[in-house]
Parts: sequence; structure tokens; C-alpha cells
Amino acid sequence: VTSADRPSPEPTQSAAWLETAHLLADAAGKTVLPYFRKRLVVENKAAAVHAGVGFDPVTIADVEAEQAMRKILAVRHADHGVIGEEFADHAGAGRFNWILDPIDGTRAFIMGYPMWGVLIGLLDGQTPAFGMMDQPYTRERFWAVADGKLPKAAFFRGPDGNIERLHTRPCARLADATLACTTLEMMQTRHEQAAFAEIAAAVRMTRLGGDCYAYAMLAAGQVDLVVEASLKAVDIAPLIPIIEAAGGVVTGWDGGPATAGGQVVAAGDPRMHAAALRILGNTRSDVMSV
Amino acid sequence: VTSADRPSPEPTQSAAWLETAHLLADAAGKTVLPYFRKRLVVENKAAAVHAGVGFDPVTIADVEAEQAMRKILAVRHADHGVIGEEFADHAGAGRFNWILDPIDGTRAFIMGYPMWGVLIGLLDGQTPAFGMMDQPYTRERFWAVADGKLPKAAFFRGPDGNIERLHTRPCARLADATLACTTLEMMQTRHEQAAFAEIAAAVRMTRLGGDCYAYAMLAAGQVDLVVEASLKAVDIAPLIPIIEAAGGVVTGWDGGPATAGGQVVAAGDPRMHAAALRILGNTRSDVMSV
Repeated sequence: VTSADRPSPEPTQSAAWLETAHLLADAAGKTVLPYFRKRLVVENKAAAVHAGVGFDPVTIADVEAEQAMRKILAVRHADHGVIGEEFADHAGAGRFNWILDPIDGTRAFIMGYPMWGVLIGLLDGQTPAFGMMDQPYTRERFWAVADGKLPKAAFFRGPDGNIERLHTRPCARLADATLACTTLEMMQTRHEQAAFAEIAAAVRMTRLGGDCYAYAMLAAGQVDLVVEASLKAVDIAPLIPIIEAAGGVVTGWDGGPATAGGQVVAAGDPRMHAAALRILGNTRSDVMSV
Repeated sequence: VTSADRPSPEPTQSAAWLETAHLLADAAGKTVLPYFRKRLVVENKAAAVHAGVGFDPVTIADVEAEQAMRKILAVRHADHGVIGEEFADHAGAGRFNWILDPIDGTRAFIMGYPMWGVLIGLLDGQTPAFGMMDQPYTRERFWAVADGKLPKAAFFRGPDGNIERLHTRPCARLADATLACTTLEMMQTRHEQAAFAEIAAAVRMTRLGGDCYAYAMLAAGQVDLVVEASLKAVDIAPLIPIIEAAGGVVTGWDGGPATAGGQVVAAGDPRMHAAALRILGNTRSDVMSV
């Protein structure tokens, strides 16, 4: 089923999603910030490690923020489903599912780095119809409405409260590209490691340590290419509308939809995306639309 | 010559340094911020690359910010020397030299990431006597007065304007440590690569992409260990007083002073520093003070 097969949501519906997302991001940020850079969080994790629970940098902040967002959704969109990181999926009555990652970049979070974000997306069937990324510490918010009768556009609200349109930047050749990736540990197979190494050797500059912030900067025309693997759906689905509405392309390494996660390649320039796909293992020259 | 051999500066002198540093950071931030995330900067760099100049992500922002800081120093401390990234060293009349890095983390800067900073240090002979790191976009400032009769203490001023003391956190064992490093490209010799790999294998978690922000978070008790190489003096000297005053230890991989750059290891806990030195190539069990 593609989006052409069914009616687009009405503008008022898209406006309601946006209003909901702002409320969700406000609530998540308010919940998470008191835990940012607090020693308590780290000590809890260390205790968990010493207790043999293993190292999983999910903090109490994640859980509480997802609870706060689910509470708002239950009131505002009782018929929508909810897919989150911390709790079981809540089945909705229709085609809409919210997809929430209260802290994308928990490792950055527990190191005190500001490069993490609250991810809020809405799936219309399998299609990402809306997305938002919020960084409450720097007071930066990125969002896009990618479906419906509203113009397909991505926006950024900065610390000063000003709202700007987001546009990716043109960059056709890998040799000119700035490449971002969260960590090489994402590349788990020999093919993934080799493909990433080939891309990294071809670009002008590679920087690790990105999480959702790398995709946001791609949408903002600051980064040309993000190549990752081992992503979960919640890590990428909310970002897809932002990247696409800003002029970028995001797919799996095979050129298919990136919504479910796994191997993901995002480019600000469709020519860059095609060049990257040629290395990442796609034999087709065309790019499937998500 | 150690600091014990000569008179400590007077408190009023330290207070004047701090006042100067705040003025320098304000001026540098005001100069640099209009260039942050502006497409112009990147296009200038791309033009330089196409012109065969090669890729050196130093922007016009660096140059203008250093000019602004040098102008203030010429008025306030005409007898002090200035060591900067962008202009020739200015010889002073005495033992004091300011050491300036207008944008530490230019790669983060040109990708739109907030993990760069303005570094301002003051050397008393070869000893870092004062240091400040400022992040003008997030409005975060870290500083310490490490000499003189003032208490040796490190401070943080956050986006809300509140000032807090900085303290490193205890973490004695590598197995519990969070390790930061800007990029593996810093490790240029086989020994450096092998030593870093051994440390990375021993710690709980490694995150790349840090620059000065990693050292600031170490001083803030969020990161346990930073291991880097190929640093310049301007990359590390201004950070040393902040780390030391917060309770951390920073030296070369050989346990000697880190002031000149090169191979640097910083730890929040002296026991962690000793454990790291054992791997990084030091055969002594004691830790030299800088």
C-alpha cells in the first residue's frame, strides 16, 4: 500500500499532529532535563553494572519521559497506537501509530554531551507521516509535516525562539562530502564494515558520534551523508519526514524504505544518495521512494 | 623551573586574568556565532578545496575571533605574550603568555554540532596558570584559576546563568570507565594505535567525537577518561587548569607535562590515570605532577 492509494489526511489533522508533537516534546524535555548531567543517573547505572545486569545506558529519564508522552497521547489521540522504546506497543484502532524514542543517543546523554534528542514520529500505515526531533538542553527543535495538504516543509526552532525553514545543501560528489555516523560498532557484518570503510575512504571527512543530531544537521544543510546500520525503527522513522521535507533522501542500503531501521543511508542531495548506494550494495541505479 | 621556585601571583592578579578571560570569551563568541551553521563558511571551504588548497577546516571565524581577542589583550595586558592558532606568536615582556584557540573542534563547527569551544589559557612560564573553555552556542562556560592565592577551583556557568563548582567523579577501574577521544586519526604510530585499542578494549564504553567538550565533561564528572594524541599546545594547555582544579589529572602518556600537547591522557580519578598510564607506555608507577 502506498500513500497514493489512500486519502491524504486533512490539513486540520496535520495541524493537530503538530500541536500534539509540540506538547509531547515539551513534556519529554521537562521530564528528561532534571536527569541530564546528574550524578545520580550514572551511579544507578554503575550499580546495575556491578549487580551484573550488564551495561545498557537506558536511564530512568527514558522511562519517565515515555510515560509522560503516552499520557498525553491517550488523551489527545485515544484511537492511535503507540510504539515506544521502554514499554510494550499499544495497538491503535486505525492506521496511525506514534513512534517514540524519549532519548535517542543515551550514550551521549550519560556523557553530558548535548548530542541526543527526543524523537517523535507518526506512522500512517507503514509511511512516516510526521516527525520531530527535540534537543531540550540546547532548546533546538526540528520537525516536518510530510503528508497531507500542507506544504511539505521542514522547520527548525532555535534557542532564540526563531523558526526557520530547513534545506539540505547540494553536494553531488562523495569526494566533497562530510560523512557522519554514530559509531563503527553499528557495522556488525563483514559486508557492513567493508562498505562503510569504502564510503569513509571516498569522502572528504568522516565524523563519529552523531545519533539523531547527525540527521538533524543533514536536514539543516550542515552534513552531506549519514551511513548507519543496526538501527531500530524508533531511531529513524521520526527523522525520515524531516530529512525528506528538507530536500534529502533516506532509504535502506538496498534503496528500499528505511522506516523499519537496520541499514540506513541518508543524503542531503539525491545525487549523493545514488553515489552512496552504489557502494553500499545496491545494484539498481534508481532510488525507490519510501 | 617548577611553580614552587617562584612567587605565586597575587589574588588581585588572578582576578584580573579571570576578568580578562570573560571579556575574551564574550568577544570570541560574539565574533564566531554569526558564522556557525551559515552556508557561506562551508562554501568558502569547498572553494578552497576545489582550488587545490586542500581541506583545512579553519574558517574566517577563527581568524576574526583571534583578532578580537588579541585586540583586548593588547589593551589589558600589553606586557603579556600571545600564542594563537591563526597568527604568529607575540612575544611578551615577562613570564606570562596567553594561549588562544578561537575554535577548538573546527570539524564539529563546520558540521553544525555544538561540540566545539573557544579555549583561553594563560601560561606562567611553562605552567598553565589559568584556563577557560566557552561554548557560545549552548551558552556554557568552564574555567578555573589554578595558581595564586585563590582557592584552586573550577567553575561552570550554564545556559541559565547559574554558576556551579566542577568536580570530577570517582572511577578507579578501567572496566567501569567511560572513555572519550576526538578521532582515531589522532593515533598516528603503531604504538599509539595499539595502546589506544588496548585502553578501548578495557573500558566500559568509548565514544568518539569530543574535542574540548570531552575534557570539559571530564571536569564536570560525566566522563572518566580522555586519551588523545597529536594535540597542539593550544588544544590542551587552556584545559589543564580546569581538569586539575576539578580533581582530575592530565599528563602526557609518559606521565610528564601535557602542556605542549602531543600524547595526552586525562582522568577524573588519579587511580584511573595511573591505570591508563600503565597501558599507555609508562613504566613508572608514580604519577608526576605537571
